[in-house]
Amino acid sequence: MITLPRHPQVFIVSAPSGAGKTTLCDKLYAEFPSFFYTITSTTRAPREGEVDGKNYYFLTQEQFQRKLAEGEFLEHAIVHGNLYGSPKTPVVKALGEGRDVLMNLDVQGAAAVREYARRAPEGDPMRIEVVDIFVVPPSLEVLRNRLTKRGKDTDETIARRLKQAENEIARWTEYKYMVVNDDLAEAYDNLRAIILAEHHLIRGGK
Amino acid sequence: MITLPRHPQVFIVSAPSGAGKTTLCDKLYAEFPSFFYTITSTTRAPREGEVDGKNYYFLTQEQFQRKLAEGEFLEHAIVHGNLYGSPKTPVVKALGEGRDVLMNLDVQGAAAVREYARRAPEGDPMRIEVVDIFVVPPSLEVLRNRLTKRGKDTDETIARRLKQAENEIARWTEYKYMVVNDDLAEAYDNLRAIILAEHHLIRGGK
Repeated sequence: MITLPRHPQVFIVSAPSGAGKTTLCDKLYAEFPSFFYTITSTTRAPREGEVDGKNYYFLTQEQFQRKLAEGEFLEHAIVHGNLYGSPKTPVVKALGEGRDVLMNLDVQGAAAVREYARRAPEGDPMRIEVVDIFVVPPSLEVLRNRLTKRGKDTDETIARRLKQAENEIARWTEYKYMVVNDDLAEAYDNLRAIILAEHHLIRGGK
Repeated sequence: MITLPRHPQVFIVSAPSGAGKTTLCDKLYAEFPSFFYTITSTTRAPREGEVDGKNYYFLTQEQFQRKLAEGEFLEHAIVHGNLYGSPKTPVVKALGEGRDVLMNLDVQGAAAVREYARRAPEGDPMRIEVVDIFVVPPSLEVLRNRLTKRGKDTDETIARRLKQAENEIARWTEYKYMVVNDDLAEAYDNLRAIILAEHHLIRGGK
């Protein structure tokens, strides 16, 4: 049989808040169930209905700091006084099992993991080319409407999110791919196409 | 509106005889009607039903040689004593109109066009990155069965085609992408995915 030699890959999907990232990632999960979807560790308290090991790994400050000191996080950040981080061990384990990994990260997190992979020494399983995809709304106006309609945020929060989205979108050139989420079905078709295409890319070729 | 700046691209699809290239290209044509599909020039006589400017540009020896001397062919070859070549003018015109170009070429032709683009001087509209995709059968055994079932060729011709396919497949690392055509619908899904993904690749980014 003729087959293309493949190595498991790390895909990063980033998007400003309100760009539709969660819906798109849920659809990816349904289509690519063999992927490993990373779970973030956090020191923030679980909210109603959140399950440890499913929504997040909930850690104490001490647990998080110890893992941080051990070099266990591919990236980490403090948001509203809580620590968040992407654990390395499950990612390395999944890659070792030949599974692709999908990380859902903000622009800062994506930059950190990209840099981690770039600097990983010879022999580190994270020494791989990360495929990062930036999902953006068709315009800031559309994003404003989506955030308003969602009804979850105050006007002040929406204004802050929009400003943040604007700053994030300005960093689009850091990514390998960009998908504009205007129509959800079309955006998803393009997102899955990127994954399928990467599966057919000849590595070590030209 | 947020949009990804795009430049028209040249896609090359290559495949050994019997790998399903024609069917796949027909499906591409149906899905991407705005693409420019190149037509080969040839000195061979038209066969029954073949239309000049649709199946081929039928040229006399003198016409072909003159165009060749003028540098009009991106690649050319002699097959069974007849000249075949891919004219440059229509490709440059299509790119100038912002259209993607799809070229259906054998392994030799793909290598020649790739090299042409690589060596094109500054200012030449062909100075672009060519995206080449290699479609292969799942195995030589499957290819043999397909060629036999097609019933168009003698045993000797089939043996020759198989040997040629084997030699061609050995050159798979020259390509950017490889698609194994086992199941036609799946192969097409992957082929179109490559085109969609390339449309979302951030050029001049990382």
